Amino acid sequence: MKLKAKYIDMDTGEITALLRTDDCMEIGVHEGDRVKVKHEGSTVTAIVQTTESVLQEGEIGLLGKAFSFIGPEAGELLDVMPTGKPESVDYIRKKMDGLELSTDEIRTLVTDISARTLSSVELAAYVTSLQINGMNIRETADLTLSMVETGETIDFDRSPVFDFHSVGGVPGNKVTLIVVPIVAAAGLLIPKTSSRAISSAAGTADIVEVFAKVDFSGKELKSIAESIGGIMAWGGGLNLAPADDVIIRVEHPLGIDPHAQLLASVMSKKKAVGADFLLVDIPMGEGTKVPTMEIAKAFAKDFVDLGDKLGIKVECAITYGGQPVGRAIGPALEAREAIAVLEGATSPHSVVEKALMLAGIILEMGGIPRGYERAKEILDSGQALAKFREIVGAQGGNPNIKSSDIQPGKYTMSVLSKKSGYIGNIKNKDLVRIARAAGAPKDKGAGVVIIEKVGGTVEIGDPLFIIYADNENKLNDALGVARKFEPISVSGMVLVRTPGFTHLQS
Amino acid sequence: MKLKAKYIDMDTGEITALLRTDDCMEIGVHEGDRVKVKHEGSTVTAIVQTTESVLQEGEIGLLGKAFSFIGPEAGELLDVMPTGKPESVDYIRKKMDGLELSTDEIRTLVTDISARTLSSVELAAYVTSLQINGMNIRETADLTLSMVETGETIDFDRSPVFDFHSVGGVPGNKVTLIVVPIVAAAGLLIPKTSSRAISSAAGTADIVEVFAKVDFSGKELKSIAESIGGIMAWGGGLNLAPADDVIIRVEHPLGIDPHAQLLASVMSKKKAVGADFLLVDIPMGEGTKVPTMEIAKAFAKDFVDLGDKLGIKVECAITYGGQPVGRAIGPALEAREAIAVLEGATSPHSVVEKALMLAGIILEMGGIPRGYERAKEILDSGQALAKFREIVGAQGGNPNIKSSDIQPGKYTMSVLSKKSGYIGNIKNKDLVRIARAAGAPKDKGAGVVIIEKVGGTVEIGDPLFIIYADNENKLNDALGVARKFEPISVSGMVLVRTPGFTHLQS
Repeated sequence: MKLKAKYIDMDTGEITALLRTDDCMEIGVHEGDRVKVKHEGSTVTAIVQTTESVLQEGEIGLLGKAFSFIGPEAGELLDVMPTGKPESVDYIRKKMDGLELSTDEIRTLVTDISARTLSSVELAAYVTSLQINGMNIRETADLTLSMVETGETIDFDRSPVFDFHSVGGVPGNKVTLIVVPIVAAAGLLIPKTSSRAISSAAGTADIVEVFAKVDFSGKELKSIAESIGGIMAWGGGLNLAPADDVIIRVEHPLGIDPHAQLLASVMSKKKAVGADFLLVDIPMGEGTKVPTMEIAKAFAKDFVDLGDKLGIKVECAITYGGQPVGRAIGPALEAREAIAVLEGATSPHSVVEKALMLAGIILEMGGIPRGYERAKEILDSGQALAKFREIVGAQGGNPNIKSSDIQPGKYTMSVLSKKSGYIGNIKNKDLVRIARAAGAPKDKGAGVVIIEKVGGTVEIGDPLFIIYADNENKLNDALGVARKFEPISVSGMVLVRTPGFTHLQS
Repeated sequence: MKLKAKYIDMDTGEITALLRTDDCMEIGVHEGDRVKVKHEGSTVTAIVQTTESVLQEGEIGLLGKAFSFIGPEAGELLDVMPTGKPESVDYIRKKMDGLELSTDEIRTLVTDISARTLSSVELAAYVTSLQINGMNIRETADLTLSMVETGETIDFDRSPVFDFHSVGGVPGNKVTLIVVPIVAAAGLLIPKTSSRAISSAAGTADIVEVFAKVDFSGKELKSIAESIGGIMAWGGGLNLAPADDVIIRVEHPLGIDPHAQLLASVMSKKKAVGADFLLVDIPMGEGTKVPTMEIAKAFAKDFVDLGDKLGIKVECAITYGGQPVGRAIGPALEAREAIAVLEGATSPHSVVEKALMLAGIILEMGGIPRGYERAKEILDSGQALAKFREIVGAQGGNPNIKSSDIQPGKYTMSVLSKKSGYIGNIKNKDLVRIARAAGAPKDKGAGVVIIEKVGGTVEIGDPLFIIYADNENKLNDALGVARKFEPISVSGMVLVRTPGFTHLQS
């Protein structure tokens, strides 16, 4: 049927056409169906939304992209006709029915996802089906490769390429800032891309951005990494596996991260930069994504198996994630803590040890014997700090950077212990809540510094943690969250008393 | 944070706020999260959509309902702050994990669905989880009752109330137009509400609308049904179980109808009109919703069990749905065929028999012995026609209506057989495609009339079916669909030949 074009000043991820219900009946479509809209030579396929209020009789509303794609004048007559769903919807149905998808079906699905051909309803059905029915390793490998194919890739002239990824879920995990310079200083190529925080207090990209640029083109990334051996870039600006960004827009509101999609999301970005060797850090423990050793081992096996299918040699390190890594949470605070370790600080012990252990594994994957010891030599000798500064300089930061240059939030408040005793428990998620309420990751200076970790002792009135914020309102918000959740619990001195003697936790 | 109100002339089922990505970061929300937007005394909770193009710095876009609810002037400063997801999202996650939902959880979920508090992403996750993981009868009963509670109900002064429902899926199923007057003429109260077609060629409401009004308030429906004993109304205008309409908006684009949701959808509308006795017609056969007898029986058992929980005495009739009921498909054509049967036509046999059989079961449920025979007496004696005309008159139609008054589409074309033989197969779905291409259900005169049904004989060049349309373009569209799908297949005379003799299908 013929309808008059009306421009709707609104745009979203979908290509949308607004129609009146009576016109939908006339055309024979319902909400969520698709119409082809023609204007002169160009045609756009749009997903139908019905409205009772916005349109006059005889009008079709076209949102931003749909309108500009076919380029009519307002009021011009357009040809509107019903059209079918993309085949991908059949494949989503197939996964809903618990069936295995073929290589071609997965490729079609991922192509439609990247091209933003699917509606958010269809995408939500996809991630929900994947969450419930899963994918086997063959399907997951096809998913990964299709995600790589539909995005940019980077080809390094040097090989092999080493890479590192942390599954995340543990706050304060700033070790990438130490691992990358150690590995690069050992002569291996490690072009590390990282993400920004979605629900955490700081992604590695957020931390690095405190003191350097992280948004590079593929060409810039290649040039920096090849000349220096390492880079710490934001992956989001590189259009690697862009299907992932589309999928995250529906995963996030549902609070899910289907296993196969998580594996494909990580591995597609590594495959896209041509990684030959990959170390995956799997933080395990209460309040992380991986609560038990059994789940962690299954996870590790899937990464290794998927790597085999993709031609990437994967090793996994299951690490302790039951409390934050180090003491600092939030972009600037984490940057300061990591740089201090590069400068020679021997604490926090958990940061130093985790970074050396992980770097050591990568060195051994690269054929360097006694990886941990070699990593420690590189750190202790200042070679890691020198390489770090070289990377920072190449990324547009100050090549003489010192930890004391980093300024955390000006507004601070200490939260004090209400009793004397041992730190019994630190709740990762509640600390993240506080840091986010204080403004992290957007406000770089916002976050939390923990004074004593699990097993440490405090007296009544001692500070448990300090909240940092870039403005006073957010500091107060964060304090409110801290009072509500009490993320650090202090147990009385006597933890267990059995007849005859008193046992104190070591 | 404070943002300037911008009105977006667009409205959808959701309460939506548009935000720039940088403001989302500042507030700490992502696409699909929720914000509270305050203006003077009023607050609205809106689902976040991000946009890069529509807003100036410092603006928040509010779509139709969100804007009018809090009523700012354009450019006024609004308070925008993040807020959590409704609990219902947790219950959707629970169903995703395959867990049983409690009565309270289901009530909360249905309340949020009816209030349109959930986003289409969340609704899609709900129906997908339900499609995969299902609900037990207790959950389904709770779902049904919650759907009733969140809508209007009608209390009849007379009791008991009889009702009838067809699960659908078979084209040409106009028997309601014969069943309702027979049952009402027998002195039973049958306030029948029906739906319009979503994907079929004609729902009962579409057919009745050819010759009478179908859109009534609850009060009008009660008054007509109580005075005459029957009514044939459109259920959609009565706000019975409105959660259903919200859910259909995501079920339809996914092409799914989760079993528990289907059961609850039917039963909630029956419970809302206070049905005491319900007959459910389950058409079974290729091309229907119920392909096998085993599935049909399981379906019937669920209806009966659910009825027990709801205090509705349910019986089910599993009927033959492998080819259309009668010969006519499309609103006016079906109306004409049904009225002709009321006037005394003894064919199509399938229409007469199905109507008498179903009406007979309802009469017996009402304590009238030998239901089929009694129904036949009522039909043959003209009492059914008289009651039908009385109902039509009360619904604003012509109380002297005759089948010959009904005018099908002026534009017709016969599709001829390319060979001589027996009709081997009639594909329901392809006939529906043709009727819809011809304009049904919107164009009342559009549809298809089949000349010979399965087992009938045709000579080469004989018409197989006639397409009707209200305009020539659509007639041609429908003819194109007919040529592509060939819905009626003709087998050569010899179907099976075994040594020594020739077997013809009877």
